[in-house]
Amino acid sequence: MLLHLSTWAEVGQYLTRSRSIVVPIGSNEQHGPTGLLGTDWLCPQIIAYEAEKRADLLIAPTFNIGMAQHHLAFAGTISLRPSTFIAAIGDWTRSLALHGFEKILFLNGHGGNIASIEAAFSELYAEASFARRRAGFALKLCNWWDLEGVGELAREQFPTGHGAHATPSEIAITQWALPESIKHAAYSPQIAPSGPIREALDFRARFADGRMGSDPAQASQERGGALVELAAQSLIREMEAFSRESVPD
Amino acid sequence: MLLHLSTWAEVGQYLTRSRSIVVPIGSNEQHGPTGLLGTDWLCPQIIAYEAEKRADLLIAPTFNIGMAQHHLAFAGTISLRPSTFIAAIGDWTRSLALHGFEKILFLNGHGGNIASIEAAFSELYAEASFARRRAGFALKLCNWWDLEGVGELAREQFPTGHGAHATPSEIAITQWALPESIKHAAYSPQIAPSGPIREALDFRARFADGRMGSDPAQASQERGGALVELAAQSLIREMEAFSRESVPD
Amino acid sequence: MLLHLSTWAEVGQYLTRSRSIVVPIGSNEQHGPTGLLGTDWLCPQIIAYEAEKRADLLIAPTFNIGMAQHHLAFAGTISLRPSTFIAAIGDWTRSLALHGFEKILFLNGHGGNIASIEAAFSELYAEASFARRRAGFALKLCNWWDLEGVGELAREQFPTGHGAHATPSEIAITQWALPESIKHAAYSPQIAPSGPIREALDFRARFADGRMGSDPAQASQERGGALVELAAQSLIREMEAFSRESVPD
Amino acid sequence: MLLHLSTWAEVGQYLTRSRSIVVPIGSNEQHGPTGLLGTDWLCPQIIAYEAEKRADLLIAPTFNIGMAQHHLAFAGTISLRPSTFIAAIGDWTRSLALHGFEKILFLNGHGGNIASIEAAFSELYAEASFARRRAGFALKLCNWWDLEGVGELAREQFPTGHGAHATPSEIAITQWALPESIKHAAYSPQIAPSGPIREALDFRARFADGRMGSDPAQASQERGGALVELAAQSLIREMEAFSRESVPD
Amino acid sequence: MLLHLSTWAEVGQYLTRSRSIVVPIGSNEQHGPTGLLGTDWLCPQIIAYEAEKRADLLIAPTFNIGMAQHHLAFAGTISLRPSTFIAAIGDWTRSLALHGFEKILFLNGHGGNIASIEAAFSELYAEASFARRRAGFALKLCNWWDLEGVGELAREQFPTGHGAHATPSEIAITQWALPESIKHAAYSPQIAPSGPIREALDFRARFADGRMGSDPAQASQERGGALVELAAQSLIREMEAFSRESVPD
Amino acid sequence: MLLHLSTWAEVGQYLTRSRSIVVPIGSNEQHGPTGLLGTDWLCPQIIAYEAEKRADLLIAPTFNIGMAQHHLAFAGTISLRPSTFIAAIGDWTRSLALHGFEKILFLNGHGGNIASIEAAFSELYAEASFARRRAGFALKLCNWWDLEGVGELAREQFPTGHGAHATPSEIAITQWALPESIKHAAYSPQIAPSGPIREALDFRARFADGRMGSDPAQASQERGGALVELAAQSLIREMEAFSRESVPD
Repeated sequence: MLLHLSTWAEVGQYLTRSRSIVVPIGSNEQHGPTGLLGTDWLCPQIIAYEAEKRADLLIAPTFNIGMAQHHLAFAGTISLRPSTFIAAIGDWTRSLALHGFEKILFLNGHGGNIASIEAAFSELYAEASFARRRAGFALKLCNWWDLEGVGELAREQFPTGHGAHATPSEIAITQWALPESIKHAAYSPQIAPSGPIREALDFRARFADGRMGSDPAQASQERGGALVELAAQSLIREMEAFSRESVPD
Repeated sequence: MLLHLSTWAEVGQYLTRSRSIVVPIGSNEQHGPTGLLGTDWLCPQIIAYEAEKRADLLIAPTFNIGMAQHHLAFAGTISLRPSTFIAAIGDWTRSLALHGFEKILFLNGHGGNIASIEAAFSELYAEASFARRRAGFALKLCNWWDLEGVGELAREQFPTGHGAHATPSEIAITQWALPESIKHAAYSPQIAPSGPIREALDFRARFADGRMGSDPAQASQERGGALVELAAQSLIREMEAFSRESVPD
Repeated sequence: MLLHLSTWAEVGQYLTRSRSIVVPIGSNEQHGPTGLLGTDWLCPQIIAYEAEKRADLLIAPTFNIGMAQHHLAFAGTISLRPSTFIAAIGDWTRSLALHGFEKILFLNGHGGNIASIEAAFSELYAEASFARRRAGFALKLCNWWDLEGVGELAREQFPTGHGAHATPSEIAITQWALPESIKHAAYSPQIAPSGPIREALDFRARFADGRMGSDPAQASQERGGALVELAAQSLIREMEAFSRESVPD
Repeated sequence: MLLHLSTWAEVGQYLTRSRSIVVPIGSNEQHGPTGLLGTDWLCPQIIAYEAEKRADLLIAPTFNIGMAQHHLAFAGTISLRPSTFIAAIGDWTRSLALHGFEKILFLNGHGGNIASIEAAFSELYAEASFARRRAGFALKLCNWWDLEGVGELAREQFPTGHGAHATPSEIAITQWALPESIKHAAYSPQIAPSGPIREALDFRARFADGRMGSDPAQASQERGGALVELAAQSLIREMEAFSRESVPD
Repeated sequence: MLLHLSTWAEVGQYLTRSRSIVVPIGSNEQHGPTGLLGTDWLCPQIIAYEAEKRADLLIAPTFNIGMAQHHLAFAGTISLRPSTFIAAIGDWTRSLALHGFEKILFLNGHGGNIASIEAAFSELYAEASFARRRAGFALKLCNWWDLEGVGELAREQFPTGHGAHATPSEIAITQWALPESIKHAAYSPQIAPSGPIREALDFRARFADGRMGSDPAQASQERGGALVELAAQSLIREMEAFSRESVPD
Repeated sequence: MLLHLSTWAEVGQYLTRSRSIVVPIGSNEQHGPTGLLGTDWLCPQIIAYEAEKRADLLIAPTFNIGMAQHHLAFAGTISLRPSTFIAAIGDWTRSLALHGFEKILFLNGHGGNIASIEAAFSELYAEASFARRRAGFALKLCNWWDLEGVGELAREQFPTGHGAHATPSEIAITQWALPESIKHAAYSPQIAPSGPIREALDFRARFADGRMGSDPAQASQERGGALVELAAQSLIREMEAFSRESVPD
């Protein structure tokens, strides 16, 4: 069930049978010569929608802009500052909690989001802690590549040149879902360099075409499909476990 | 050209021929017994994508959560506070301006967003004004129903019972674009009451099923298609005029 | 009754017979060659004080600095950023609500304030909505030129050259109330140009002497007096209606 | 010269002969059984306007709402939180600095404002310090009772029962300037108690009628007039000295 | 009892016999040619630890970075902006209040902190006042040099050249406590100049070696020891009085 | 070299030979029945001071309060909200960068700090990225248990019952450095339970005595000494490598 294609009454009905929701969250940022700017929010959206076809899950609209300050020297990147990101995640969560959602899983597609999302969780919990009350909800961050079995499959598919940004696995997923948007380019070097992440101009100086440690040429629709299939199944199990989890008094 | 389906190099190319971009912006909020929660961000997205098929426009990802605090007593609504919304619009705009976008049009689908979006524009301009420098970009807010001819067509299609929220025109647009998500319900009264907008519990007490002054039963795919067609053409002209507009020294 | 010339006990007494208050709100900003910098906060103050002479109204101190970032390239303008403005309106409102004021009408004198004031209202309502409680107060924004009959009278008085900033109507009001501060200058062109509002340097480049579309030479004390008289009467009726308005359970 | 009764061109002229400005700043808060709610912003305004009649001073609009959280349990009090107050003083100052004002004196009428005003100054200076640049302006806080000779005169006029809030000296000043607003009441006890300042309910529990240590019955128009006369003269000298002060390279 | 060297259970025990705590607070900033950068947080820490040896006091960790923007042009200075400082003091206080601390004394070592600390107190109290509830705690700011008798002793020890920054009294205290960190330098002039405090570059231009009005050469370990001894005793009495203070209903 | 025991001139001297600095950062929070509340800031401070004895390192004052919202239901815990923490780390870093520090390593002692510290780094870098300029500094987060070899040693020392909070390794370090503060208690169960981290009341319900998965009884001064020795040496190497790291143009 996709929240944005439902009515409020349908969501009300859903809440009588489940208090759980999945929020796909990512980033809109450069992904090298061939990766789509939307890669990081498309991947969790694709996986969540695929899971939703197979189980009674509720999927929130996709949180499509994240913390991508280091990519801002490449055209098309849109970034929130961490402080803005934390405020926005806060308002999304407070809204969902008002309706009675108790288990909110953020299915994340961007490594650069992790710290800010977790800081946002702490900011939300702190609101309850400083008020000496229970939060009433549990938050979970789950990167799609950390879903059970997915990292293993990716390492098997791409034993070398997987890298950390514009990876063949994420590009394969968008290729599978959006074949009409597959792009082609030569990579030089074939495997991009690695290094630390700092501000945008430093990033551009280190990573000339935007990739980090990756060789996206290994991506294929078929491999993307296998990743999505596995990730969708794992997400369903993850949500089942999260939903069952009880809260101590 | 959809930004999220493009590479950074393609956006760089686009910038050599145009400095303009459209940002669909809306809200995820209850829309009465039959309206989709995503109505207000789907409508501008649908119109923008339709325009993009006919002209060399660049469409940013959709800003899908807006200022909907008054709808929070209906399940599924997600709202940003105005302060968060202003911060986020700020970061989107600063990101786009970094790449050289000079004319940024927010195609809006939610009346409740207007004040906060304009306040966000002022916050951004004030940054330049207090620093005694030029902003380097021009911002325009355009509600899809204010696009040339669109309001007239809607009034013609729905001479009574158009109302202000969960209107037949916006529901018709989503029906046209998403026929598999058409919902049915009886409306009582046929035309919903009107009244002021305050906090969420006040809103729910005034507007029992979420509609304001509207009779969505009048919506049809056909009428939605006509609205989208007209709005897309008007958006193209709007962007042409905005792009041509020169800035005084 | 002017709040600032009353004691706390007198305000306490007033609250036993009414829960309503008027807050004149404006801006301190350039108003062309002859308009006073205080025009936009003086006008609502003048009207409110005039109404107070004729009815049992309580008038708060005047909120005299608003959102005037676009005028900052003209000497004497003082502006709040929208974010500051929203915070300040918030604290004023929270203070008044603490005392039991339930109907708070902001009588506004500056078009540039509108978006930020409405965003401030939403920020305040959102506080209640996110806390799942009633706000306990209703907020109304009323521009003096939108008071019943006032716009019509102004259009009658100034069929051409009314414009949007440094208008003959607002200048006439200050001339009526402050005859010792009437200024004289030649206008060139007689009717100022129109155009969009952006950052301060852009504004100055477009509007050389600060006026927008107006010919203030048409202002006269007499016309100002007629506007004030009508506006004061309309304000009294507006407050009566607002005060009577009931809140649904 | 009163800024709000001037045009931008007149302020521009003023700036060719002086870079100094006085900002009356106070609070709108309960002042005991007979003190006006506006006392703390009226006093500096009265003194500044009186000084302006005798010297070429420029007086900004009055900053009329300050930090009065402790008075919020008395009707009519309006308070900014320190954080809002600091933000607003910041925007006033940045606006004035844009026009070239280099010496900005805040003539303060409320003891409870002092810490927040000084914190605001530090916040403004820190902006420059963290940016490794000069501020371009100097800020001075001057309480009217600290103007040369004024405290001495008040102590002479009111050797006992001057107190700290709703003092006979401030009430005398408003009596002199606003004789039509003189209020009468019996005081019990004649001299109010003293004590620490904490949150509003604590304050109300300690100071039943709002006064702190004062006997306002000693106020008279005549004494108020003498205080204003002396304060106005001292303010003129203070501004002369401040204006002459040079800044090291 | 030092909080950071205790377990939570020991603090819980302490709370059964006292609801009071001392928070040493200072700044890390240049202190002239011979003063330690940590002087302003070391002094209150030294005094508090000395008092703790003689009485059943609980001492919180030292708040070691304060508002030192004016010293930022000298290497090693670390400053919070007032807004950050206020936020942090807020979180410290809210944390302590959660555990039941009702009397929180900030023993301060830096004059530049005073305004921001008091503004922070008001911000905290305002939270309660705007929520129409009691704060549940009382806050006190106490500069070590204002402890009973301490200022008198310092004036006696240093009748001339005490000054306002890098004073012989504070340097004497660190010399007594940290004899291995005593530094030597010639002072020129022997007594530093005085002047106003503005932004960092202005400060450096006025106060070439960082001192303000002081002659630190007069410091000695012996004088430092006498100051600490007296201050520790006064702090104990101060805390006894503060702890005994009752709160009105 | 300890910054707080140095003069500004000495720090200036240091900057002629190095642009690097270590900031010990931790948290003040409950650490089970026997762990000190200061454990998490004492550990990095102890290690940094030990390293400083053996190499030409500059150690900043310890940032002693971190993100510990989940421990707030245990007496003595002091926490910053993530937003405050980010603001404070920002001001520390901006201050240090002003003096020319280019490599700033935060030696962290608290897992709960990691997300907020990294978010703070991104916030700082974003400031540069949005301004299209280089940051001028590189930031590194290093948890002491991640220093080369340290985790391995801890796993060897404590093959079972190391756990995640109130671990024998951190307690051993404080035992080695502060033998007079060693506490004793019985643990029940011997190895504490594990589980997710949410708000404070949830935490207390899950982890009755504050430990997470640990058996602190295994701590000893000797093991603590070995950990400190190794960590200090690794920190020196880490700083050498970080200092040598060059920045691309």
